[in-house]
Amino acid sequence: MRVLIALGGNAMIGPDGSATQQAQQAAVELAMKRVADLVAQGIEVVLTHGNGPQVGNLLVKNELAADVVPPVSLDWCGAQTQGTIGFLILNALEQALAERGLRRRVATVVTRTLVDAADPAFEQPTKPVGRFLPEAEAARHRASGQHWQNLGDKGWRRVVASPQPIEIVDAPAARALMDAGFIVVAAGGGGVPVVRDSSSGMLRGVEAVIDKDLAAAILARTLAADILVIATDVDQVVTGYGTPAATPIGKISADALAELAAAGEFAAGSMGPKVTAAVRFVRGGGRLAVITSLDRITDAVTGGYGTVVRAD
Amino acid sequence: MRVLIALGGNAMIGPDGSATQQAQQAAVELAMKRVADLVAQGIEVVLTHGNGPQVGNLLVKNELAADVVPPVSLDWCGAQTQGTIGFLILNALEQALAERGLRRRVATVVTRTLVDAADPAFEQPTKPVGRFLPEAEAARHRASGQHWQNLGDKGWRRVVASPQPIEIVDAPAARALMDAGFIVVAAGGGGVPVVRDSSSGMLRGVEAVIDKDLAAAILARTLAADILVIATDVDQVVTGYGTPAATPIGKISADALAELAAAGEFAAGSMGPKVTAAVRFVRGGGRLAVITSLDRITDAVTGGYGTVVRAD
Repeated sequence: MRVLIALGGNAMIGPDGSATQQAQQAAVELAMKRVADLVAQGIEVVLTHGNGPQVGNLLVKNELAADVVPPVSLDWCGAQTQGTIGFLILNALEQALAERGLRRRVATVVTRTLVDAADPAFEQPTKPVGRFLPEAEAARHRASGQHWQNLGDKGWRRVVASPQPIEIVDAPAARALMDAGFIVVAAGGGGVPVVRDSSSGMLRGVEAVIDKDLAAAILARTLAADILVIATDVDQVVTGYGTPAATPIGKISADALAELAAAGEFAAGSMGPKVTAAVRFVRGGGRLAVITSLDRITDAVTGGYGTVVRAD
Repeated sequence: MRVLIALGGNAMIGPDGSATQQAQQAAVELAMKRVADLVAQGIEVVLTHGNGPQVGNLLVKNELAADVVPPVSLDWCGAQTQGTIGFLILNALEQALAERGLRRRVATVVTRTLVDAADPAFEQPTKPVGRFLPEAEAARHRASGQHWQNLGDKGWRRVVASPQPIEIVDAPAARALMDAGFIVVAAGGGGVPVVRDSSSGMLRGVEAVIDKDLAAAILARTLAADILVIATDVDQVVTGYGTPAATPIGKISADALAELAAAGEFAAGSMGPKVTAAVRFVRGGGRLAVITSLDRITDAVTGGYGTVVRAD
């Protein structure tokens, strides 16, 4: 059985939200123990991960060093985090496996994800990134072409395009490594976004971020995974979230979950894309998708714990 | 025939030394045309690359944002550049191949390189990195444990450990991809330096940089490359460099070249490690090593151009 696990970017920072190098390393080491537990059950695992807090740090660096070193675009920030988080996962997962008597090799592939240059997201950026700034500073960035949103008391925050992933360009490399026995880390941060030049056919990076769960759903199908596990902060998806009627969802059909989503049950920036990814994976032919917390991924895969989405 | 090409970090910045994102992209696109020319000759190619100017930029960002975002260590900077340069190479090389009618896939592997925690380099840092700063600012960094060197009129510059590479930890992933038909990019920037914890056996990143040519020599042997090509700024290695007696070296034995190196013919931070890498590759059983300029790599491999090092 092959399982693709999508780890939240928040699972790779400290419990207090700290994204220092030490906090990231400690969090990844903890996460990889849970992944190794799953491998120890004889499950074939592929990994992908988010990178929100990490890209946030890189954007601050871009901004504060801009007078000396030219800032780099969001696709480069994504590529940078594939390097660092991929590196942490290599060390931590190999160690967690060794502690369980498993001598498996892990490999991280720099991964591009194709998006459509005509995706409406480029006209209507909606994904908040980086830190909050006062209006005057936001205005300076807006003057240079960036989109910033007034979020009231907290200040202004940059919003960027989050286009739909179409294809995981480097999935064949991930598959070749998987076939050779490696546990593969791919499409980190949803993949580095690229568009195809219509005349030359060349792929080029584009200023955008890709939802890592939506990318994971495509990668899971491309690699013929049986199960997509979306590991997040909560054990189950909840309807009526934050109300007295809050109810966790156990087993549910893709259609029923899609209906709840259409009724506005899930927040756009948080549970919404996870639900969409689960629905897409199952509707595309995946056996089942599970949304649960990192600590429960083995229970989810072997015992049906969490919010389990099936075709019917 | 299998050839490992080591591209200088300076081959991936603008002709004026600019390391903006645009300059890096343009330089990589140019370099990949030459690599594609070689592939078009039927040669099996593996790529590695330097990252000096790129890490320099990241260190400046670390420094200028330090009050808001905690700086990351040199191993992380290296991992970041494997992401960005690897990403550029994927796009540029696939395009250059397509323009030559070649439908080959390229893959970039995040690569660790093992060093010895007891390497004397950690006691005697010698490799200059990042920008020059005035004495007062250097003193502040020295107070926090960094090593800085007084370079006279230009100011002070940080020096870091450059330990000897022992093993390319992720070479098996590179080999698996190569065996599956990919042109592989690996060990960028010499690889992300790791040491092995003597009790747990775990690999961990370490504050250091690794010479990319010395790492390339090991990678080339590990992947059973026939030829190691070190692509740099000059067509040939020169004895008596900068003197009226300057003489380019054509064909030479590893022993004769090693003797010239021992006599102090080659600068430590520049031609020295390239010569050492060439000698090590050939002495370790490699068929031949060539040091030449990027523009001549096809001539070097197919016609014996450049400084060609053989066992005898």
